[in-house]
Amino acid sequence: MTASAAFEGQAIAAIDTPALVVDLDAMQRNLAAMAGYAQAQGLRLRPHAKTHKSAWVAAQQIALGAAGVCVQKTSEAEALAEGGIGDIFITNEVIDVAKLARVAALARRCRLAIAVDSGLGIARLAAAVRAAGADIAVFVEIDVGQGRCGAAPLQAGALARQVDDAGLRFAGLQAYHGQAQHLRTGAERAAAIEHAGACVRQALAAIETAGLTCPLVTGAGTGSFVNEAASGLWGELQAGSYVFMDRDYADNDASPGAPRFEHALFVKSQVISRADGRAVVDAGHKSHAIDSGLPRVWTRDDLLFANGGDEHGILRPRDTVARLPALGETVWLVPGHCDPTVNLHDTLVGVRGGLMHGVVERLITVDARGCIT
Amino acid sequence: MTASAAFEGQAIAAIDTPALVVDLDAMQRNLAAMAGYAQAQGLRLRPHAKTHKSAWVAAQQIALGAAGVCVQKTSEAEALAEGGIGDIFITNEVIDVAKLARVAALARRCRLAIAVDSGLGIARLAAAVRAAGADIAVFVEIDVGQGRCGAAPLQAGALARQVDDAGLRFAGLQAYHGQAQHLRTGAERAAAIEHAGACVRQALAAIETAGLTCPLVTGAGTGSFVNEAASGLWGELQAGSYVFMDRDYADNDASPGAPRFEHALFVKSQVISRADGRAVVDAGHKSHAIDSGLPRVWTRDDLLFANGGDEHGILRPRDTVARLPALGETVWLVPGHCDPTVNLHDTLVGVRGGLMHGVVERLITVDARGCIT
Repeated sequence: MTASAAFEGQAIAAIDTPALVVDLDAMQRNLAAMAGYAQAQGLRLRPHAKTHKSAWVAAQQIALGAAGVCVQKTSEAEALAEGGIGDIFITNEVIDVAKLARVAALARRCRLAIAVDSGLGIARLAAAVRAAGADIAVFVEIDVGQGRCGAAPLQAGALARQVDDAGLRFAGLQAYHGQAQHLRTGAERAAAIEHAGACVRQALAAIETAGLTCPLVTGAGTGSFVNEAASGLWGELQAGSYVFMDRDYADNDASPGAPRFEHALFVKSQVISRADGRAVVDAGHKSHAIDSGLPRVWTRDDLLFANGGDEHGILRPRDTVARLPALGETVWLVPGHCDPTVNLHDTLVGVRGGLMHGVVERLITVDARGCIT
Repeated sequence: MTASAAFEGQAIAAIDTPALVVDLDAMQRNLAAMAGYAQAQGLRLRPHAKTHKSAWVAAQQIALGAAGVCVQKTSEAEALAEGGIGDIFITNEVIDVAKLARVAALARRCRLAIAVDSGLGIARLAAAVRAAGADIAVFVEIDVGQGRCGAAPLQAGALARQVDDAGLRFAGLQAYHGQAQHLRTGAERAAAIEHAGACVRQALAAIETAGLTCPLVTGAGTGSFVNEAASGLWGELQAGSYVFMDRDYADNDASPGAPRFEHALFVKSQVISRADGRAVVDAGHKSHAIDSGLPRVWTRDDLLFANGGDEHGILRPRDTVARLPALGETVWLVPGHCDPTVNLHDTLVGVRGGLMHGVVERLITVDARGCIT
């Protein structure tokens, strides 16, 4: 759709809608704040690239000291490696033999790590890596409270032993509590990560009993990383959303000691229909993911956003004095959840100079858009 | 991601996961059933292509007698026109001047129609069409109960008059009740469309008072089209989801007199992690849209699907005897909502011969994937 594509130097006011716009000033402050935090804590930072899916943003993070990036899927790793990223951790399990052959092939092209949580997964991974003559770092994933992937902590010793016996390189524990990120109070998040820490201690003991040492515990997200950092157990932080932030993270109360991150990701929309009591914008859930709730109308807390389906959002006043935007007027939205919102777009429109009067500085390709395999 | 792409002749069992798979046998029965229904009723069929976003599927519908297709966005129309579709209706408002110039340019390349619901929209459209020397069919959209886009029915006369006075071609009324599609009982849907019909009658009277005749009333969706058809008011049906069906539509009770449509759209996933009481598959809401609820596990009503985030689904047994699938086992999901699910994928993998033992017959490009502008 070349006719509607944004271009460098374009005034923000002229960007076609809807568009996913990144405030590069805010993003770079977020990047610097997190890099500074990790450095001050003496921790490695390996940001999760599932948030931005972009080799360019990943390279910014690495330039600021990150050890590399995380991804969730093999195809995401392939896309970022193709984009020049040289150190990638697939923080997820792969069980399919054909896909493991791709993992092994990729491990010959860049530094690669992967998570395992089953004997079958380890055996198949070892066969694929051996056949390819590759080297890969293997993290045993334990379930630290979310009840999704990950072995029971007490199984970590046997799994680490199996990794080592299979000739693979045991690199440590993957211990990430996704649900903890979105608990609203700092006390709830601290309690969840305290539980996660207890699981990590169990796993570390089991690994020691198995006669191995654990080189690294890695995990944590934007909602909880101060808790993992304070525990003294985790050596590497995987926070991702801090780069853009979203409405859901902003709904958390502040974590004491955490840097203050800013919203840097916005959907530019415009009003296409007006009636008594409502203004309808051209951005629906094909423009922004709604798995973590609806967007917030930026700088217009007097307006309520209601879901209008794939292509529409319906704005209504919260009270009698709120002014509804006019036909054609621009409305900026803060998405509920940044990661799957980015996945809906081929390009992030990077702007500088503020949303009102700035210009397009850079079009950022979402290299891993749609990479689900 | 060429390494993981499906290919013609491939066994279904070998398709990499997750993948969006179309059962072409079921799809073609759905296409034939709807075409036959419209013909028997003496109604025009203009299926909504927002469901499949594919020029190839649109061409199948037109070959079976459809007058053309509907889309929601200008960029969708551009993508389908590029794919060879010659008759397209943008069932939505466009207010942006630059986008209206694209609409007018497209109207010189194919038969094009568009909806309007405001004086400003009509004036800007007329200017764009005049500047391009194009011809476009203009439908006045009325709100028939959803409270989204569309003018009040009594305004239809003044708007139609303005369309005509501006030198545009007044083509009729756009009257679509999106919410009615998902009301669970036939009685509720009938009541909603009865209300919509009353709105249409008001609008028709207002148009007559304005000294114009209304050539066509167009609208209806897969949940309610038997009601619009029975009203005698609508002359064209816009149902789209019937081609694939989804979990949400299947949750409706049957409409008397409606053809029986089959599920034709599935996410192929596989188990990547197992623990006591749960199996985790590699398909989350980056593989299937969840705006209308979670997927159903196909042929396994004894399993509950819980949301595991962007990349995971968590299966749990509904009762003590349900067998959980094993590590690596294939699990087929029926998405909650077909339209935005298709939007997550670049390709639909068209298969023939059943999900268990069939083969890939055709890769169907989702031409309008990501077309939100």
